[in-house]
Amino acid sequence: MLLGGLSGEWTLQNEGPDTFSPFDVVGHLIHGENTDWRSRITMILEKGDSQSFVPYDRFAQFELSKGKSLEQLLAEFSQLRIENMRWLRSLHLKENDLDRQGLHPVLGHVSLRQLLSTWVVHDLTHIAQVARVMAKQYKAEMGPWVEFFRILNF
Amino acid sequence: MLLGGLSGEWTLQNEGPDTFSPFDVVGHLIHGENTDWRSRITMILEKGDSQSFVPYDRFAQFELSKGKSLEQLLAEFSQLRIENMRWLRSLHLKENDLDRQGLHPVLGHVSLRQLLSTWVVHDLTHIAQVARVMAKQYKAEMGPWVEFFRILNF
Repeated sequence: MLLGGLSGEWTLQNEGPDTFSPFDVVGHLIHGENTDWRSRITMILEKGDSQSFVPYDRFAQFELSKGKSLEQLLAEFSQLRIENMRWLRSLHLKENDLDRQGLHPVLGHVSLRQLLSTWVVHDLTHIAQVARVMAKQYKAEMGPWVEFFRILNF
Repeated sequence: MLLGGLSGEWTLQNEGPDTFSPFDVVGHLIHGENTDWRSRITMILEKGDSQSFVPYDRFAQFELSKGKSLEQLLAEFSQLRIENMRWLRSLHLKENDLDRQGLHPVLGHVSLRQLLSTWVVHDLTHIAQVARVMAKQYKAEMGPWVEFFRILNF
């Protein structure tokens, strides 16, 4: 909703080298749905902490999103998220399942509860990022008002 | 969309004294639609810089939102925003109108262009704030992942 129908002037700008535009963010979220969250949940449930998660490529979308429109990516993400939520509910996780342990390649032991919480926060982080990156496009047009908006300096 | 159907556990928390919960943010946006943006635009067009804008009360929603549900506030905001966008389009502003000057009580001279840009950024700032405030509710549940999310320290 935040991104539907906007021009590329808004959605293709980023915050400098190795940062994401709103377009990149949506590709990154798609890659996470396809390769990260679900497979890590599965690994915790099937292998516990006997095997480390596959490291996540934070820049894969630069290649994977090529040639696609933002509208296509938004539709793709929406579909994947619906499927993954359906799958997650189908697991019928119990309270004590949330304490099951997995092994993160950098962070070491993590619980399923921590993984699920991080999935939520990851979304919210990227929503905030999209809002911030778009806000910065207007910085030059705001005149003296800029000083009231600390977000523009992040 | 970001806030529809969520529990108060998410939407009533803030970031400490004098900060806004997501619920407060929606009330603040409503107050802005009712008293701030439109009346400042009108003042620029009618009075120019001969009269200073009425200062905006950033905490008015603490009183005005009392007894209302978040769903009510979201519906109210949506309705007001639709009306104000209809009104804004009906002004048929020209490019050179955007350079017309007004007088801000703290910032001094500002243009209509700067006011309109700030209106957009103000929205985006509060979207980022809502995402951040909600993300922080999960901080304690994320375990070692917290270190990957700089938003949680803002």
